[in-house]
Amino acid sequence: MSYKQQILDKIAAGQEVVGVIGLGYVGLPLAVNFAQAGVEVIGFDKSQAKVDKINHGENYIKDIRDAVLREVVDQVKLQATTDISRMSECDALLICVPTPLDIFKKPDMSYIESACIDIGKYMKPGTFISLESTTYPTTTEDFMLPIIERESGLKHGEDFWLAYSPERVDPGNATFYTKNTPKVMGAMTPDGLEIGQQIYSKAIDHLHLVSSPRVAEMVKILENTYRLVNISLINELALLAGKMDINIWEVIEAAKTKPFGFQAFYPGPGIGGHCIPLDPFYLEHIAKKYNFDLSMIHAAGHINMRMPHYMYIKIAAALNRHKKAVNGSNLLFLGVAYKPNIDDERESPALEIMDTVAHKGGIVSYNDPHIPHVTTHHGHKYQSVPLTAKTLKEADVVVLTTNHSIYDVEYIQQHAQMIVDLRNMVKEGGEKVYKL
Amino acid sequence: MSYKQQILDKIAAGQEVVGVIGLGYVGLPLAVNFAQAGVEVIGFDKSQAKVDKINHGENYIKDIRDAVLREVVDQVKLQATTDISRMSECDALLICVPTPLDIFKKPDMSYIESACIDIGKYMKPGTFISLESTTYPTTTEDFMLPIIERESGLKHGEDFWLAYSPERVDPGNATFYTKNTPKVMGAMTPDGLEIGQQIYSKAIDHLHLVSSPRVAEMVKILENTYRLVNISLINELALLAGKMDINIWEVIEAAKTKPFGFQAFYPGPGIGGHCIPLDPFYLEHIAKKYNFDLSMIHAAGHINMRMPHYMYIKIAAALNRHKKAVNGSNLLFLGVAYKPNIDDERESPALEIMDTVAHKGGIVSYNDPHIPHVTTHHGHKYQSVPLTAKTLKEADVVVLTTNHSIYDVEYIQQHAQMIVDLRNMVKEGGEKVYKL
Repeated sequence: MSYKQQILDKIAAGQEVVGVIGLGYVGLPLAVNFAQAGVEVIGFDKSQAKVDKINHGENYIKDIRDAVLREVVDQVKLQATTDISRMSECDALLICVPTPLDIFKKPDMSYIESACIDIGKYMKPGTFISLESTTYPTTTEDFMLPIIERESGLKHGEDFWLAYSPERVDPGNATFYTKNTPKVMGAMTPDGLEIGQQIYSKAIDHLHLVSSPRVAEMVKILENTYRLVNISLINELALLAGKMDINIWEVIEAAKTKPFGFQAFYPGPGIGGHCIPLDPFYLEHIAKKYNFDLSMIHAAGHINMRMPHYMYIKIAAALNRHKKAVNGSNLLFLGVAYKPNIDDERESPALEIMDTVAHKGGIVSYNDPHIPHVTTHHGHKYQSVPLTAKTLKEADVVVLTTNHSIYDVEYIQQHAQMIVDLRNMVKEGGEKVYKL
Repeated sequence: MSYKQQILDKIAAGQEVVGVIGLGYVGLPLAVNFAQAGVEVIGFDKSQAKVDKINHGENYIKDIRDAVLREVVDQVKLQATTDISRMSECDALLICVPTPLDIFKKPDMSYIESACIDIGKYMKPGTFISLESTTYPTTTEDFMLPIIERESGLKHGEDFWLAYSPERVDPGNATFYTKNTPKVMGAMTPDGLEIGQQIYSKAIDHLHLVSSPRVAEMVKILENTYRLVNISLINELALLAGKMDINIWEVIEAAKTKPFGFQAFYPGPGIGGHCIPLDPFYLEHIAKKYNFDLSMIHAAGHINMRMPHYMYIKIAAALNRHKKAVNGSNLLFLGVAYKPNIDDERESPALEIMDTVAHKGGIVSYNDPHIPHVTTHHGHKYQSVPLTAKTLKEADVVVLTTNHSIYDVEYIQQHAQMIVDLRNMVKEGGEKVYKL
């Protein structure tokens, strides 16, 4: 019996084992999803701490309900391990490792490379492999395949199958989560596509199949490039509007009344998180190989990189109107998460603004109910201060950097000496409020 | 009694006269809309031919039903005239004149200027004036107001009121037309806003009021800049995808399955019409006054300007694969309208491609069921040829430039020697089809 028939039979009988490599905000929800569907799941992670937590039924991802995690662990549907040799027990291996940019904003492919080496060493023949991490088109075919074939000595299409299926996790989104968000998948061969479909269908409501991994890779980049470009556009227009005495928030609300051909994006202090500020630059990277200059992404990246600086200028200008300098003033930042109601400060522009302010002699403090302490890019460590009438009053300026819904804007407005509102949180203005 | 009370009383009694200046694809539907609502309308246009047509009940705008125009003309609710002195009969004057770019892509404000001079000379005290043409923010306050006050000797806020309310006409849109598309309006004073609301409410279902004309001006530019930037982005990605052997159309279809945070745009041979290729450059123009460089619009404009040239390269490459040169080949273009199912070829990229092809020695012909003859930018005159098996067969390449729904793609595919499909009209490929 062929490997293909073997794995299809196993899936049909509900006896397949799915391995998930990387147990972060993408991998863990995916693993839990499979386990909930009754599939036996082994989660792999290099972090012993994470593995221990999971095996004790302790949840560390906000988008998963604690009870659900406990349940699948109790039923031994989900086990976590640091032991990569157990990849040999898996029929499918789904790779959910980070794809960050290095300090020169170039793709850091080391996590994918390392996962491919591990897989090549330990997988058994007849394994289906799918990459979920965002990356540049051609990664699956041109980067992963040679590593896996070399390390395993196995032949793609006969002994294993390779696919790409991008995660679409939107942290904090209560409507769309892993299971009910349509999932795109492209495989290198029709067999791979068929097997992938059977694997994923148990955990995902709707699969959208495409003709190749590179198409699927491009899909994810298009989605996030669309967001980067539009946020950058509205940020640039917001800066111009400020100079022209036009309230950009009022403009956006009015434009939204157009019932066709418009989608609203909002300005802010810069783009954060692990997708939008990163993904487009993966495409820019590979485009160079094709002698191609992506001018839209380039312009958007430029604006985005400068936003925290412009925000610093805005804060300094507000203080200046009150005859105060940044140097020696107390600045309280409300919200360091990169978007509302989440506990993730990765790539958050608030941290960059705090660094600039501190560098210029400002006395920085912050509050974030979801993030008790942070370390900035400059290595400064801060602890979240309580949000009281006293802390608000003592600040020469309160900077609204994240629109957590828990924030009581009226209370903040009542006690703050001056507010710089970068998120349009204060609806009724007033003399002491300065808006982006 | 104040002028304000006089005009409000007249509106309440249904005795107001509304003048519409400029009877093109914006002004005529607006005029008809008011007339249908029972308001007496005088339409002003410099073209005696247009005026005569309207007064004979002859319609020349596709989005208006012939019977409706005839009815309001028969009932003498709508009269057209070239006699600008009759502006003195109007209580409201709505300006719907063109705002093109000159050959150096700078705003041509001469139509607005001329309308303001006419109004200043002939309006009576107590007139409400609203500009509907797309233009840069500050036009109403800084450009129009001084001209009208100078020419009329009247004082704004006491003797007349000035507002800005952008048209949102989308030619060919069967769902949203003038009446049921929400309309944004900003006036210079609260009185002007109140009067404008009373005037427009009779003809428009939903008004969205904003705090100033410049906010309303920015709204329209934002809407169209959003479209320019996104079309340019997908065009740029399409060019890269072509080099990477990725079908961009398949990518877009897959990205559309993301149920949040994505709106699909499609590539094409360039952006046409009288809004999207123009409006953002109005903003770029005024931004210079504020020492501001709009990098996103700049990059988008650059891509858009180059698209027809890239399309020429694509056509030449397709011919080359069949060992043919552009020079001496027969090229048949299907569709010169700038978008499907309309009869408007303004700024259409097809014409620019045809000019380039002709310049390089190609023998150009075209078919467009909606546009019987055209004159290109280079001054070449063409007549639409019949779309037959013979004309298709005789062409060395058939270029699909506009996706009119009347086109029978299967028939075209059956008879054409070779197809360059710039609109993803051919769903099933084949050897002789080359896609953008």
